[in-house]
Amino acid sequence: MRVAFLGLGTMGWPQAANLCAAGHELTVWTRDAGKAERFAHEHGATAAGSPKEAVAEAGVAITMLPDSPQVEEVLDDAEPPEGSLVVDMSTIRPSASRALAERLGERGVGFLDAPVTGSRPKAEDGTLTIMVGGPAADLERARPLLDAMGKLVVHAGPSGHGSMVKLINNTLAAVNAAGLAEGITLARAAGVDLDALGEVVGSGSGSSAMLELKAGPMREGDFEPLFKLEHMLKDVRHCLAEARALSLELTVAGAAESLYAAADTEGFGGQDFAAVIRSVERD
Amino acid sequence: MRVAFLGLGTMGWPQAANLCAAGHELTVWTRDAGKAERFAHEHGATAAGSPKEAVAEAGVAITMLPDSPQVEEVLDDAEPPEGSLVVDMSTIRPSASRALAERLGERGVGFLDAPVTGSRPKAEDGTLTIMVGGPAADLERARPLLDAMGKLVVHAGPSGHGSMVKLINNTLAAVNAAGLAEGITLARAAGVDLDALGEVVGSGSGSSAMLELKAGPMREGDFEPLFKLEHMLKDVRHCLAEARALSLELTVAGAAESLYAAADTEGFGGQDFAAVIRSVERD
Repeated sequence: MRVAFLGLGTMGWPQAANLCAAGHELTVWTRDAGKAERFAHEHGATAAGSPKEAVAEAGVAITMLPDSPQVEEVLDDAEPPEGSLVVDMSTIRPSASRALAERLGERGVGFLDAPVTGSRPKAEDGTLTIMVGGPAADLERARPLLDAMGKLVVHAGPSGHGSMVKLINNTLAAVNAAGLAEGITLARAAGVDLDALGEVVGSGSGSSAMLELKAGPMREGDFEPLFKLEHMLKDVRHCLAEARALSLELTVAGAAESLYAAADTEGFGGQDFAAVIRSVERD
Repeated sequence: MRVAFLGLGTMGWPQAANLCAAGHELTVWTRDAGKAERFAHEHGATAAGSPKEAVAEAGVAITMLPDSPQVEEVLDDAEPPEGSLVVDMSTIRPSASRALAERLGERGVGFLDAPVTGSRPKAEDGTLTIMVGGPAADLERARPLLDAMGKLVVHAGPSGHGSMVKLINNTLAAVNAAGLAEGITLARAAGVDLDALGEVVGSGSGSSAMLELKAGPMREGDFEPLFKLEHMLKDVRHCLAEARALSLELTVAGAAESLYAAADTEGFGGQDFAAVIRSVERD
């Protein structure tokens, strides 16, 4: 079965490469035609000149794009054939995922929202976590492909639930990182030894993945982007919007949003989200 | 060297028991005289009728009491002898620790703030984390005792810094647990499979000690107190007050405080702090 891969960015490129390495026949498209040609040459895939050309012969089309406007535009252009399956691995709002599933469903095309966690190194190693929303039968169809890209593939529920799980995970990360930024800033202001603090918290009830990953960059002011602050802000806002649509006000996540928004306004949007500490310092 | 132990509560009792087991000669006092006698009988210690009697012959006096008013009152009654050392293992405000250090110092008595993390099982196993504020020489004097009660003994810095590290750790736990409560509530409202969510978050950037320890109790509504919500609220408020004294406004910790305060008002103060999820649900 031929597979179309649309979007060869930071994450898409290594994901598509792993599909080729696992023996799948790929037709790739990305906005930069030269980049698609280069990928095709390096990994033994076929480059397509348009989304439509890419999906024409494909049983499954995978999209890995910045946000819902790009996913919607590319899929409108592509017109995936009846009976085929679209697997969107971008991070978009659950409501946008559900709308796409409905629209494609009317034309006899299946749809899974299948966003990922893990950054580029995990995309390269094929060890991403992939959370899938949509019918179980469609997930089984896509599973050999997902297994080539991820280590943990979790069926989160019906359409939109993959996206929702992704947004909740990222919002938890955003809250934990913002709390950590406040803790480090207070410790500094009080003159507390930060190594001692890290040792105690790391072995105790305050520990988190964010402590392990972001305490160092926050302390050193090293904001080389692994995940951009503006993308984290986007995810937290998507999450708050979904909550509001369900009549839920998220107090702590809302407070975190205000810190990321302040950092974004101060010009840290393109840097790593560890830069949220800059807006605590300026309070 | 004789050691006085003042306060045989949930934590104090097993801590004192470990000191006896390590061969230290203990004189114990606690508000309930019968309890002190019982401890003395079970662990081969001496029971004292008053704090003053307990510390009279002791080189080191250890306090493990609810909050600063109790610590201050007991130490005022005790009048530790000149040249002795007081080790306060209660969780009190750093400013209160510093004031005690100063007051005792004027009478030639040393003082360490040495609060602990880890609940009763770790107190029983002697595997607490102990964070110490005060002079290094006093810490060395107390170290054989601390090693009998804890696995990790960290010198956090000068007087008050042990208390500050403890408050920051607990505030991070409070923030991470409040964020988790919001995430679980949103997932539930959206109909997301909570097992799938836990699997994804547990392997990703949103994971935390609180996810491991409190997601289950939050989901099951099991608020059997391991650490009471009113105590967590007290710690977060102490932390916010210390920050304010340093002209720092903690936005996210402040939002968490409002959730714990709402849960406390609703009558959950005596239950485990996982009950913070009740105030998210009622938003």
